[in-house]
Amino acid sequence: MVIASQSERSVILAEQLGAGRPASSNDAPGLIVVCVPPDITADIIERELAAFPDAIVTDVASVKMAPLVALVHRGVDIHRYVGSHPMAGRERGGVLSARGDLFVGRPWVITRDANTNPHALALIEDLANDVESVVFEMSPEEHDEAVGLVSHVPQIVSSLMAKQLTDAPERAVRLAGQGVRDVTRIAASQPDLWIQILSANRDAVLSVLDQLHLDIEAFANALRDADAPGARDVIERELVAGNTGVARLPGKHGQNAKFQTVTVLLDDRPGQLAQLLTEIGELGINLEDLRLEHAEGALLGLVEFSVLPEAAETLNTELTARSWRVVL
Amino acid sequence: MVIASQSERSVILAEQLGAGRPASSNDAPGLIVVCVPPDITADIIERELAAFPDAIVTDVASVKMAPLVALVHRGVDIHRYVGSHPMAGRERGGVLSARGDLFVGRPWVITRDANTNPHALALIEDLANDVESVVFEMSPEEHDEAVGLVSHVPQIVSSLMAKQLTDAPERAVRLAGQGVRDVTRIAASQPDLWIQILSANRDAVLSVLDQLHLDIEAFANALRDADAPGARDVIERELVAGNTGVARLPGKHGQNAKFQTVTVLLDDRPGQLAQLLTEIGELGINLEDLRLEHAEGALLGLVEFSVLPEAAETLNTELTARSWRVVL
Repeated sequence: MVIASQSERSVILAEQLGAGRPASSNDAPGLIVVCVPPDITADIIERELAAFPDAIVTDVASVKMAPLVALVHRGVDIHRYVGSHPMAGRERGGVLSARGDLFVGRPWVITRDANTNPHALALIEDLANDVESVVFEMSPEEHDEAVGLVSHVPQIVSSLMAKQLTDAPERAVRLAGQGVRDVTRIAASQPDLWIQILSANRDAVLSVLDQLHLDIEAFANALRDADAPGARDVIERELVAGNTGVARLPGKHGQNAKFQTVTVLLDDRPGQLAQLLTEIGELGINLEDLRLEHAEGALLGLVEFSVLPEAAETLNTELTARSWRVVL
Repeated sequence: MVIASQSERSVILAEQLGAGRPASSNDAPGLIVVCVPPDITADIIERELAAFPDAIVTDVASVKMAPLVALVHRGVDIHRYVGSHPMAGRERGGVLSARGDLFVGRPWVITRDANTNPHALALIEDLANDVESVVFEMSPEEHDEAVGLVSHVPQIVSSLMAKQLTDAPERAVRLAGQGVRDVTRIAASQPDLWIQILSANRDAVLSVLDQLHLDIEAFANALRDADAPGARDVIERELVAGNTGVARLPGKHGQNAKFQTVTVLLDDRPGQLAQLLTEIGELGINLEDLRLEHAEGALLGLVEFSVLPEAAETLNTELTARSWRVVL
């Protein structure tokens, strides 16, 4: 592995961390992975294609149409370029945030069409497989529409919901529960990166965002006229559509299985949760999901487990028998 | 404790569960707690005030202005009524969902004004304290505005975001990560209850929802014209406002402390997490929050801990030394 960066310090750090060695003028790379912000992705792809006439070039930008269109527009020969998007962002960037395990089990989209060079595709798939990603092949359009829906618009919605909290009285904010916390969690993301992502995926984002805007307007109007005939039907239809939509999201291991939730009350001191999980481990029950929640102002925690439905009853019976405070 | 319900079966079940005994015609209750859906809360409060001329009456509806306005409108003497709202809903209703621990550490808002009967207030506060809630006193208007912002509008936003997933291609939905899952989690809530809540808190909900609607419009327009002068500034300002808003939400124990996240990679088999938590317990580190995440298609889990910043370094060093795969 050979490393090049505009930051000399980054190259030194990356080498020290064992990522590879600095590039030299004699290098003849077979595959070049361009990892730069979306705004300059096309520039660097073009530069690398020109500098290394035998290399395959890919990139990892979270939008795939914009760099491709820019390259085609400039008349760059793209038969050695295949875009990709490993979907494993961290909230921090830089060499020190790199982890060998970052991509394990995460989707890695490789964008292709019928003309895509099979040799280039195979090289990038090998890389994705080496880091244990799950490969998805899509067209750039399909990718951009998908991430617009499942990543970019949720980011905007979360940010704009969180924005409504900025001027709220402190006493109102103190009533916040887990619901609003979940809805606004990703509002903590980096603005500078997101400006680039959203700008570069404008069309796909706007097609979802404009629809959401219309839906909010229709919902608000129905609520304003909630006593008018049919208005409650509109509200109900929208809330039911929300039930249907969220049920489509994949659960653990790509299944859509419905898990059951079991809640246990814990005292808020070290070791309680470990003790509980040790006992659950002894029962041979595998947890599909786990969430620890602390109640506002209380020295007490709630831990919520998702388990397969057949395990929920066992967990309830066995933990209750062992004096845990279980809420099924 | 004396129980009355329009469902005879519920009364029998509640008695069997030890909640109290069925009401009889000789009862002279000191405090009556009306627990019925928002649509009929005012009716039942009125009935109970009339039936028991010496009793204090409260209710637990999640909106506080609508029942009060309805009572005043009907000319009901409300000096024996004080509204309240224990904020500890479950996603299921009914007697069998009742739990003695349900209210522990949760906010219990008691709505009052300068004329509120101090005796009535004290009785309800005693009840809230008995079940270990954290009491907040507010005016009904302040309550409704607060929950409109931190509970009702987030519900609408989550539902309408989730709605956008209903017709999405399966391949798009499979790229969904934790972000969209969090944003849409509460979209799984019961439509029938939420229609009542939202309708009854129309004004407070609409004042936030209309602003959000305008913000989405402005954001979409800025994105549409992202190359125009100033457009990126608008986008940035909105994303930064989202950062500011989410940072206001209370963390554990009502603090606003910033916790640091430490991630550990686990094999997906029973006992791994228990072992890890046992070792963390031995280190004497208290976890502020914990989240287990399974990667799409992978037999591997990520567990994310939130800890006080001073504990993060210790946790990293000690767990790495014990061969855990830590991502700080």
